[in-house]
Amino acid sequence: MEEYLRERHELMLKDRALRHDHAAHRKPSLDEIEADAVLRKIRTTEAKTVWDSKRVVEHPHGFQQMFPGMEFLTARSTIMSTKLFAILSEMPKGGLLHAHLDATVRADVLLKLAMKQPAIHVRAPGRLSMGTFKTVLPQFRALPQTQWTQLPSITDPSYDPNTWVPINNARRNFSDALGGPEGFDRWVIGALMIEPAEAYGTHNSTAKASLRIWEKFGSTFMVSDGLIRFVPIWTEYVREFLLSSIADGISYVEPRILFWHKQMVGADGEENVPHRIWFQMYERILNEVKASLAAQGRADEFVGSRIIYSTLRIGTPEELEWYTEDCLALKQEFPHLVAGFDIVGHEDSLEPLIKYADVFLRFKQRQKELGVGIPFMFHAGETLGDGSAADVNLYDAILLGTKRIGHGYSIYKHPHLMEICREKGICLEMCPISNEILRLAGSMPMHPLPAIMNHGVHVALCSDDPAVFGNMGLTFDFFQVFVASELNGLYTLRELVWDSIRFSSLGEQEKDHALAMLEKRWARFVKYILEYGTAERLRN
Amino acid sequence: MEEYLRERHELMLKDRALRHDHAAHRKPSLDEIEADAVLRKIRTTEAKTVWDSKRVVEHPHGFQQMFPGMEFLTARSTIMSTKLFAILSEMPKGGLLHAHLDATVRADVLLKLAMKQPAIHVRAPGRLSMGTFKTVLPQFRALPQTQWTQLPSITDPSYDPNTWVPINNARRNFSDALGGPEGFDRWVIGALMIEPAEAYGTHNSTAKASLRIWEKFGSTFMVSDGLIRFVPIWTEYVREFLLSSIADGISYVEPRILFWHKQMVGADGEENVPHRIWFQMYERILNEVKASLAAQGRADEFVGSRIIYSTLRIGTPEELEWYTEDCLALKQEFPHLVAGFDIVGHEDSLEPLIKYADVFLRFKQRQKELGVGIPFMFHAGETLGDGSAADVNLYDAILLGTKRIGHGYSIYKHPHLMEICREKGICLEMCPISNEILRLAGSMPMHPLPAIMNHGVHVALCSDDPAVFGNMGLTFDFFQVFVASELNGLYTLRELVWDSIRFSSLGEQEKDHALAMLEKRWARFVKYILEYGTAERLRN
Repeated sequence: MEEYLRERHELMLKDRALRHDHAAHRKPSLDEIEADAVLRKIRTTEAKTVWDSKRVVEHPHGFQQMFPGMEFLTARSTIMSTKLFAILSEMPKGGLLHAHLDATVRADVLLKLAMKQPAIHVRAPGRLSMGTFKTVLPQFRALPQTQWTQLPSITDPSYDPNTWVPINNARRNFSDALGGPEGFDRWVIGALMIEPAEAYGTHNSTAKASLRIWEKFGSTFMVSDGLIRFVPIWTEYVREFLLSSIADGISYVEPRILFWHKQMVGADGEENVPHRIWFQMYERILNEVKASLAAQGRADEFVGSRIIYSTLRIGTPEELEWYTEDCLALKQEFPHLVAGFDIVGHEDSLEPLIKYADVFLRFKQRQKELGVGIPFMFHAGETLGDGSAADVNLYDAILLGTKRIGHGYSIYKHPHLMEICREKGICLEMCPISNEILRLAGSMPMHPLPAIMNHGVHVALCSDDPAVFGNMGLTFDFFQVFVASELNGLYTLRELVWDSIRFSSLGEQEKDHALAMLEKRWARFVKYILEYGTAERLRN
Repeated sequence: MEEYLRERHELMLKDRALRHDHAAHRKPSLDEIEADAVLRKIRTTEAKTVWDSKRVVEHPHGFQQMFPGMEFLTARSTIMSTKLFAILSEMPKGGLLHAHLDATVRADVLLKLAMKQPAIHVRAPGRLSMGTFKTVLPQFRALPQTQWTQLPSITDPSYDPNTWVPINNARRNFSDALGGPEGFDRWVIGALMIEPAEAYGTHNSTAKASLRIWEKFGSTFMVSDGLIRFVPIWTEYVREFLLSSIADGISYVEPRILFWHKQMVGADGEENVPHRIWFQMYERILNEVKASLAAQGRADEFVGSRIIYSTLRIGTPEELEWYTEDCLALKQEFPHLVAGFDIVGHEDSLEPLIKYADVFLRFKQRQKELGVGIPFMFHAGETLGDGSAADVNLYDAILLGTKRIGHGYSIYKHPHLMEICREKGICLEMCPISNEILRLAGSMPMHPLPAIMNHGVHVALCSDDPAVFGNMGLTFDFFQVFVASELNGLYTLRELVWDSIRFSSLGEQEKDHALAMLEKRWARFVKYILEYGTAERLRN
């Protein structure tokens, strides 16, 4: 038996040898070893006390049994009540490498920003009633002052669908039958977020065309666009994104900003603000946030931000070429701000990378000519397909030389591609809560993340569209990943955090600086866990 | 671009090179190439005409969008209406390597077998009503004639719970309020099978303890045991299992038979029939079936059957040792019938292999001493756990030298274990529909089978507990796997079928014979597809 147990131990070590949190790669400190034990103990305890399968929680279809890593939208409030969540909230998170800017600020905060702007008007394409509350979606737009209306209400029987009402009037006079001003808030916020009934009810499918959950997902961006793509709101939105990220322990952000629309609506209500002004505004806000942190003696908490230029995976190759040229011009003007290039949108139903391969090859050629480097950061493999166009995007992303892969969900099916990622250091930006809500994974234990980590592929955990999913910051994603596996420990968290800086677009010196800051904060975090553990023991 | 496309093609080939259906391993015939195209075309067409995501099907919670590989229990009747199902029904399936005997005969057929036995009595542990129809489960038992009762009804107000009623009386006089005799059938069959509302409703979870879907699953065996473990029914049950398998194109079966109970109830109603008589009976029925096939000129359709001796993964190591010794004795008496040894039951909540490791090591030693070989065929990794005891069972199964792995669901997370399986030729008995109904996978596209196949691990598709899940035969499992991937083609089907013979417990000569028979039937199947394709073209 002794011999057997020895062989067994060796087999496990060998099987897990590719993992980046493997003991062979870095010797943990004594404090870390103890803190790891504290975290594991709390996880084990809460698996019984909180996630007891005999307990149930309300669910769109009645009740749902509890389990660790269960569906996020039904588990959210329970998660927030746990000790583990309290601890992970204190964790320094490193970089946020995959988030779509337009879905990074809480819906209620966005609505408050909008309420401050008298230019913002709202309209409804149909008659609002209890029956149409979920299907008649608000449309927003900032109007030039000459077009401002005085219409009193969007719910009055006299309301003419599709006419603009000032947002403050619409809210103040929202019909009592629909809940009054709070009803207005529910209507708007409901259109900006995915609710449990939508994710886990009849929208529950990822089938190829006409995906209901993806339809709802897409519609949230249609609703928010009219609010966000307006200079006075956009600048405050960016500020809020940076500040709320910092508050969650994130020290660097690399958002994807969608440049599909060639202009933003200016303060004058005219759609006339070109992309370079977006960059100027972004930089100004970024500097203001950094200055404010420095003034508070908190400069160490945040190293900065770069932007992944994104457009949509629709249209002709010629149309795409306008964007690659636009991106080149911006990179030349803002070399320190342009981190990379991507095309975004639902992979299963929109265009595959191969359609644009020649544009991308020319883009690389043009970069050489101009002496600039704009790495691809392609979305690829965000699909359940096996050999489908979306799955095959992984081959193209890698062949085109992508620096990281957005999602790469289906890569666990590809032994050679995982090998390439491992060897070339192509990091996956994995968004577990996003994947679960968009019904790629039924729950966390079904997510391929453990398979991918065990194959030695570098991963950065990301939130994708936190404003739509309600997973603000990164604490929720780290939580869900941590509880769904008995292999994951403190060293796993550390490697995920470190990788999010190592595989960022920061320069080598910036990375060293960021990692040095991280090391200090990590040591404080480890102490915090130990103190938490001691307090727990005293209490029990 | 030309260069790019060439590299892309090579990358795909390399990534898929480990697959056993890869062109490098076997050159398909011209007929096969054409038949493969026919199958793919039908799949593509039916993905639009049948599995259109705009269509919905009734579901426990209202309606469910259609998609290929969707939840089996809601898709079942749609599947049966497809051309692809009609074609796959004609496919020779090779061997069935993973099925629990007690769940291999349709529930309605079992009930009919029981109705012929006046010794069979039924009782209810509580009062039956519409409200308790799903919770008060029938208990069956064959009684010695001296104990037969004349009680008229199990639903009469005068019925005293837990008293035995002759099954025929119970059925005939089942209360009209509960549906009369048909209501009785529904009551019994509902207790023997998992219904959509149970799999996809509130039972929808695989959490560790007290798993509702696993509870229901387990209860079906409690109900059926009283019927099946009775010699006059058991023998007919075995015959029905063999005949229905043959009718589905299966040419060899290797069922797991549970020897947990040390005795079967004899025709006299006494529990006094030991295991060796079970083997004698099994062999007699097997020979009768073979003789009957031979008489019909159909000897080529079926090569035989062997038994995997199974007991439960509960109890002490000492208790297990009784079974390993029992198995050794049976192997000596029936060397041609004992195929292997396994312990079965819910891995997430019952005992891990490591608990019994020393018993297994001694068992191997004893085999050496006695000059017999009884390979392990361990269930392992039938779990969503990551590093949990059930997941870790994979290490023990492999270290103990398992010949095949029952399920091995979580092996896609283990790079080194997949390598060992590939190199040592350890085949996985994968049961996709079982996994989906027991909520390991939300639907077929979430199943790890493609990842496992792409890593070059041999797989035999199996039905596990078809009587409980309603996936009789192997056609349903092949169907679900085929439609859920665009990589799978005719060559994939062929490799899965061939592997089910190659990795069976047949001797080398028997395998050669079985494969030769299979080759002939496969050629006929390919012709059948081609004719089907031609007929389709003429129709359109």
